[in-house]
Amino acid sequence: MAPASASTGLQLRSTAKKDGFLELSLVNVTTPDPKSDEVIVRIDASPINPSDQGLLFAGADMSTAKASGTVDSPAVTATIPPAVMKALAGRLDQSLPVGNEGAGVVVQAGASPAAQALIGKTVAILGGAMYSQYRCIKAVQCLILPPGTTPAEGASCFVNPLTALGMVATMRSEGHTALVHTAAASNLGQMLNKVCIKDNVGLVNIVRKQEHVDTLKKIGATYVCNSSAPTFMDDLTEALVATGATVAFDAVGGGTLAGQILTAMEIAANKTAKEYSRYGSTTHKQVYIYGGLDRGPTQFNRTFGMAWGIGGWLLTPFLQKIGFEAAQKLRERVAAEIKTTFASTYTKEVSLAEALRLEEIAVYAKQATGEKYLINPNKGLR
Amino acid sequence: MAPASASTGLQLRSTAKKDGFLELSLVNVTTPDPKSDEVIVRIDASPINPSDQGLLFAGADMSTAKASGTVDSPAVTATIPPAVMKALAGRLDQSLPVGNEGAGVVVQAGASPAAQALIGKTVAILGGAMYSQYRCIKAVQCLILPPGTTPAEGASCFVNPLTALGMVATMRSEGHTALVHTAAASNLGQMLNKVCIKDNVGLVNIVRKQEHVDTLKKIGATYVCNSSAPTFMDDLTEALVATGATVAFDAVGGGTLAGQILTAMEIAANKTAKEYSRYGSTTHKQVYIYGGLDRGPTQFNRTFGMAWGIGGWLLTPFLQKIGFEAAQKLRERVAAEIKTTFASTYTKEVSLAEALRLEEIAVYAKQATGEKYLINPNKGLR
Repeated sequence: MAPASASTGLQLRSTAKKDGFLELSLVNVTTPDPKSDEVIVRIDASPINPSDQGLLFAGADMSTAKASGTVDSPAVTATIPPAVMKALAGRLDQSLPVGNEGAGVVVQAGASPAAQALIGKTVAILGGAMYSQYRCIKAVQCLILPPGTTPAEGASCFVNPLTALGMVATMRSEGHTALVHTAAASNLGQMLNKVCIKDNVGLVNIVRKQEHVDTLKKIGATYVCNSSAPTFMDDLTEALVATGATVAFDAVGGGTLAGQILTAMEIAANKTAKEYSRYGSTTHKQVYIYGGLDRGPTQFNRTFGMAWGIGGWLLTPFLQKIGFEAAQKLRERVAAEIKTTFASTYTKEVSLAEALRLEEIAVYAKQATGEKYLINPNKGLR
Repeated sequence: MAPASASTGLQLRSTAKKDGFLELSLVNVTTPDPKSDEVIVRIDASPINPSDQGLLFAGADMSTAKASGTVDSPAVTATIPPAVMKALAGRLDQSLPVGNEGAGVVVQAGASPAAQALIGKTVAILGGAMYSQYRCIKAVQCLILPPGTTPAEGASCFVNPLTALGMVATMRSEGHTALVHTAAASNLGQMLNKVCIKDNVGLVNIVRKQEHVDTLKKIGATYVCNSSAPTFMDDLTEALVATGATVAFDAVGGGTLAGQILTAMEIAANKTAKEYSRYGSTTHKQVYIYGGLDRGPTQFNRTFGMAWGIGGWLLTPFLQKIGFEAAQKLRERVAAEIKTTFASTYTKEVSLAEALRLEEIAVYAKQATGEKYLINPNKGLR
């Protein structure tokens, strides 16, 4: 394949078709001329986050994936279960670009001084369509990375770092003083531990495997509870009493975990209560579900009084709620600590074409803790 | 039995015993001398609300109930399931009075002018221990009923009326414009319909039987959805589109109903959405669970995007949140409309001794729609 000039570039597309199939493909798109306040970023690094996979796979059963297309223009098709199709009405037969965040070098800029000032700078950007060789974006949306930062180091400046900071900020704004996190050995979970250690915030980590307990202990976590251990509910209650955590952020979603956390919070609250309250503890206990690692139904027994809530939590509405200036402060903190608190690690760097190989999809679609892919859309193309 | 003087009176007691048994009994208690700011109310009417039955029955299996005691001093025992015992640690072996609200005549008063002014007045009161012949209470807690109102008419001034008003106030304060209510043919549900019709608030009623649809249609309800009908989800969605309701108050608790309501709200929200939103509708959808008619687990599939919440709702914290003055305005509205909007109906009036008869318990413990008991603690005793 001949190297593309900046005037055109490859872009990964996901299409959920009316006939019940997902199609992933690469298309060659024309790079627009940047307007006065815009720049063109050559994307050199973009992570595959769990939050990208909803749009990418459209709920298709990836065990049915088949390769099609050519070596230069690979494609993948897979079956979408009928139950999922109903939720896709709004995107059927639309060829959608994918990739929430990425980093790269500004190679072209509009006439405004703000845009011109970015030429040659390594920047991190958020906004979709990052699995592309080139991305046109407003200059004001570019987060300039500190000198000496590579695009790979700056690729994950937004989703995980702002989610970790957003959880702590939500905890504070709703009057809680410590928090619980599930699937806690993930990239995001490790980052949250670093934030909480640095900011002196109590954190109760919940994981499913002993090796994940070890991972977190190694980076300095104090409270790590293994939900596979027979002593889980006791361990969790003890950690909740010790930290006073009354809010949890849950990446699992399905099953009984959210209810178990509320039940343990209720037991912890009653251990310190002074008199019998017939409707249970009056302490408000909250679980926010922000992921769906278990896509099955959520089930709970309401054995935690009446002062409780379970709800969805998402980064974008959180950022809108706190406003641009407060969000900008969080972004600047991320840039300043991108090699320490907010450092991400990846198990593999792939090109756009490699990202569509069945053997790679089989690995990253599992969203297994410790397996994280980085796409370099310009790998092998320049 | 000799009529008791105001200096002593019968009181219904509930004791959850360490050995796993519930004991209901009547005890003769001394009426305290009222302090300066207190009065003694002769309770002539007190409803058996669903919210009383938690304290009264302590989760015991009432199908195991046995009569004991004497005709003058009846008692009932029943088995408490081991799983329930854990939640009762705070009340074991304590003989607790029961009855949230009631009405009667002030028969004695403390020295303060405020207390003295109440002598001979018919008042409604809230505060527990109402299944008693006499109740000592602060004068400021007495709601004076309009002239010509009987204690039976004023017995339910607080729990149901303030809950109905609290639901509408919560709806407004959280930015919703219409609401959904389940178990909607109940006494409370009918009251809520009257409030919403009077205040011009959109209300979607959910019931389980055709006869309950008829009951509500008869009092002027516009939207009544029968969850037993095969068209339930479509009917509900249509009513949600028509009203714009995005908050629900659910008395059922267990099962799939809360999730079905959120799912229908999501479908309704997407019907009016202008573009595809990958995380579902951005409209916040909320279900508050305030009862537990189905004590089984709550289960839902999270097919309603990320902008949702499920939580507990209880009258007392709501009243504390809005403050004394705002709550007092609600109470005054209830008194003014006690024979119209907030009128309650009862299927039977029983004495304290009759309330402990197994054949009566078998009826009122079912909490069936249309079966509501009123206790007159002084029936046959004066």
